[in-house]
Amino acid sequence: MTGNSLLQQLMDSFCCLPGVGPKTAQRMAFHILERDRDGGRRLSRLLVQAVDNIGHCQRCRTLSENDLCGLCTNEQRNDVQLCVVETPADVLAIEQATDYRGRYFVLGGRLSPLDGIGPREIGLDQLAGILAEGRVEELILATNPTVEGEATAQYISDMAADKDIQATRIAHGVPLGGELEYVDGGTLAHAFVGRRKVGI
Amino acid sequence: MTGNSLLQQLMDSFCCLPGVGPKTAQRMAFHILERDRDGGRRLSRLLVQAVDNIGHCQRCRTLSENDLCGLCTNEQRNDVQLCVVETPADVLAIEQATDYRGRYFVLGGRLSPLDGIGPREIGLDQLAGILAEGRVEELILATNPTVEGEATAQYISDMAADKDIQATRIAHGVPLGGELEYVDGGTLAHAFVGRRKVGI
Repeated sequence: MTGNSLLQQLMDSFCCLPGVGPKTAQRMAFHILERDRDGGRRLSRLLVQAVDNIGHCQRCRTLSENDLCGLCTNEQRNDVQLCVVETPADVLAIEQATDYRGRYFVLGGRLSPLDGIGPREIGLDQLAGILAEGRVEELILATNPTVEGEATAQYISDMAADKDIQATRIAHGVPLGGELEYVDGGTLAHAFVGRRKVGI
Repeated sequence: MTGNSLLQQLMDSFCCLPGVGPKTAQRMAFHILERDRDGGRRLSRLLVQAVDNIGHCQRCRTLSENDLCGLCTNEQRNDVQLCVVETPADVLAIEQATDYRGRYFVLGGRLSPLDGIGPREIGLDQLAGILAEGRVEELILATNPTVEGEATAQYISDMAADKDIQATRIAHGVPLGGELEYVDGGTLAHAFVGRRKVGI
């Protein structure tokens, strides 16, 4: 078994997937080989197809098979709102959960000067070009509420201010179903600072 | 994004892996496309290579690239002991945890007449052939302690008895580090029935 190098290589290569350690990789390899060889072939084919064919949308930088993604070519979306997110997964999450009908811009990361990630690396020159077109009226900042995410949002809101565009930040606070007692301190502080008037 | 069918197909095909649901599949697909395209290519290549080239050892029925697996061709292993397990993963587990140096036989399942799995489907005719060679002196039954696993072990021990070969069953009881209080009733009952003399 230990001399079975192809099996061992397959297990090792499953470990490149997020959240997959040696034990899970072993289970996956055995599952494919013993129960689902067709599924393995299909996964293999789609992996190489996806890696070869899926690039980035030239306008919004999300993942796309074509030069422009389905959201950028969609005539039904309004050009007035532009939502800035960190990753393509964020686009998917917003599309699934909200009724937002504007456009997106995907940074593909966040400002992190120490790691050599500056404005150019996250496509802010490209974003500046879109803002210069003059159609965007609201720039929604939906970067993650981490230190770098906040700094990135701040930087972009300054860009928007220079062009007299209204920037907004999505709300951060106690999640639905969360109990105050168990919410972390940072979130609770955020929720207090961001409190809004209710009633009349 | 929703029109991005290749991405969606990739996510769907990740769901063929054990323990992977839609959310994890999405995370895997984005990870490959955004951070590890080389890993994705490698996984794709190894998947199709493994599915095409890894078959079953003609003697012990474990997974193997060649007609005979490394364990069956290894001259260092003794032919006197033969350990019967349900899956190739069991072989790996025993190899990693014990100092067993005998041979293996992999059933690839367990007797389950209602599902149409009889002696022939789990290779018992082949096992009978190996026992008939006359070299095996101890047949170690290491099927899982489930109803079908026990029935399979019983069936095989009868085969061994017919040929005057000593059959043994691996011990089932309280696992190391387990606390009596939290061990399930079946295991505890097993541990009591299987108690052994200690001391002088």
